[in-house]
Amino acid sequence: MTRGAYIAVDWGTTNRRAWLVDARGAVLDQRRDERGVLSIVPGSYPREIADLRRALGDVPVFAAGMIGSTRGWHDAPYVDAPASLALLAEHAVRLDAGVTIVPGVALRAPHRADVMRGEEVQALGAVTAGLVPGDALLCQPGTHNKWIELSDGRIARFATTMTGELFALLRAHGILAGMLDGTVRDGTPFRAGLARGAGARDLSSALFEVRARVLLGVRAADDAAAFASGILIGADVGARDDVAGRDVYLLASGGLADLYASAIAFVGARAVPVDSDAAFLAGMHAIWELSA
Amino acid sequence: MTRGAYIAVDWGTTNRRAWLVDARGAVLDQRRDERGVLSIVPGSYPREIADLRRALGDVPVFAAGMIGSTRGWHDAPYVDAPASLALLAEHAVRLDAGVTIVPGVALRAPHRADVMRGEEVQALGAVTAGLVPGDALLCQPGTHNKWIELSDGRIARFATTMTGELFALLRAHGILAGMLDGTVRDGTPFRAGLARGAGARDLSSALFEVRARVLLGVRAADDAAAFASGILIGADVGARDDVAGRDVYLLASGGLADLYASAIAFVGARAVPVDSDAAFLAGMHAIWELSA
Repeated sequence: MTRGAYIAVDWGTTNRRAWLVDARGAVLDQRRDERGVLSIVPGSYPREIADLRRALGDVPVFAAGMIGSTRGWHDAPYVDAPASLALLAEHAVRLDAGVTIVPGVALRAPHRADVMRGEEVQALGAVTAGLVPGDALLCQPGTHNKWIELSDGRIARFATTMTGELFALLRAHGILAGMLDGTVRDGTPFRAGLARGAGARDLSSALFEVRARVLLGVRAADDAAAFASGILIGADVGARDDVAGRDVYLLASGGLADLYASAIAFVGARAVPVDSDAAFLAGMHAIWELSA
Repeated sequence: MTRGAYIAVDWGTTNRRAWLVDARGAVLDQRRDERGVLSIVPGSYPREIADLRRALGDVPVFAAGMIGSTRGWHDAPYVDAPASLALLAEHAVRLDAGVTIVPGVALRAPHRADVMRGEEVQALGAVTAGLVPGDALLCQPGTHNKWIELSDGRIARFATTMTGELFALLRAHGILAGMLDGTVRDGTPFRAGLARGAGARDLSSALFEVRARVLLGVRAADDAAAFASGILIGADVGARDDVAGRDVYLLASGGLADLYASAIAFVGARAVPVDSDAAFLAGMHAIWELSA
């Protein structure tokens, strides 16, 4: 029996992206919405799946991301790094209703622990799609940025930085709130922030300087957001001592990609843009093929 | 004419402490409340002063802290470091109603900028009171921790760390919210946090590990708050490369003093506890004497 189309879902905390994909991996239809797990009432996932099928087609669903967390629908326990697409497919959770949930990946190192859900499909799919070599360093910024080290086509090690979340918290609450509403773009204030944040051990002191500089007139209030973003992204990229002189495969788009590309260049590395949607779809298609 | 008693006020963002002090510096009465500047409607400061006088005595008022900020009553422009009590007294702002507002201190260094309001009176008063030598490193934890370097009895340099604020933001909002409600005390989880945070350049990654360790069962959920606090305080104290082998004069009390003392010992320094109320009163009394 020939397998037909399926729906691939990147089901995150805040956003959801779904594609109808045919058996050769071609995208037939898609939708994006804000039906992330935080917006879905427990118990209503079957209806969400039915809605997706009504929109895209009555076919099997393959979902990755926070949908498989304890905050999502069904817990799909983490597989341990080093992790391949085959390992993800092997440990995917199949629900009765023709829904397969892909597990996340856990790092259990002697002095470090970390977890991811969703980024693993992108990272490994990028290799499958030929967008990234099997030995590479990936950077996947967002609310939480994932640094993923691929070795021999598998996820060997990774680290999560809370860069985007910290910026959002500081902008919304606390002493810097009201100072960080300006436009954030690559430019002189952002690069001054990179210089202050990259390699800094005193991040929380650097952040307070945003306020001090504005109060003392050393920096324009309009520039404070870009300066603060530069500090945070500089600290994120600059904390790594393994990037100088290397290619960093950057799975991001839009303004955030520009900011990280600038930071990556600042520390002497080269950012190579990768289409994260294409990477995700390639990864999911491989998992779908392995799940026959 | 002999000068009589006065009211000394440490008027902060959240809290307010006021003492009735006689001409020899002895405390006659005091009150503490939560009438910090954030809780006071602009325009109602005259009534607040009248209330304080009704409670403590109809005498001159000497106030320091956020009362002198743009968020407070009257802007008392910062004096630049290096700063002495004489400089603070010289630039204090005298209002018509027998109220004197002590300015804060600004640091304008080539690559750093910082500000303080309130801590300067404590730091310099600690020297006046003989609690701290004229050349010393002070640590004043709170929502924002101030590291103050005294040289020749003056505030030479200082740095603010947002340690307490970051912990509060993470506990109340974002991905770690709900994980950080446990008790924070010095102990094995806190010290594991110190080890992770001290000297770390990847603070935001260390913080995400709190979540990962709990999810993976590497650390008990009840210990997460102490571990996270240890990371933050460890990063705060461990960012300094000038503390090992030194005395660090710690102006704090209660549980927070215990945590910082532990962190200071962890990096090879010695915490010397200093009574911050006594330090503030000594500083304000000197300013009062200089303001005759």
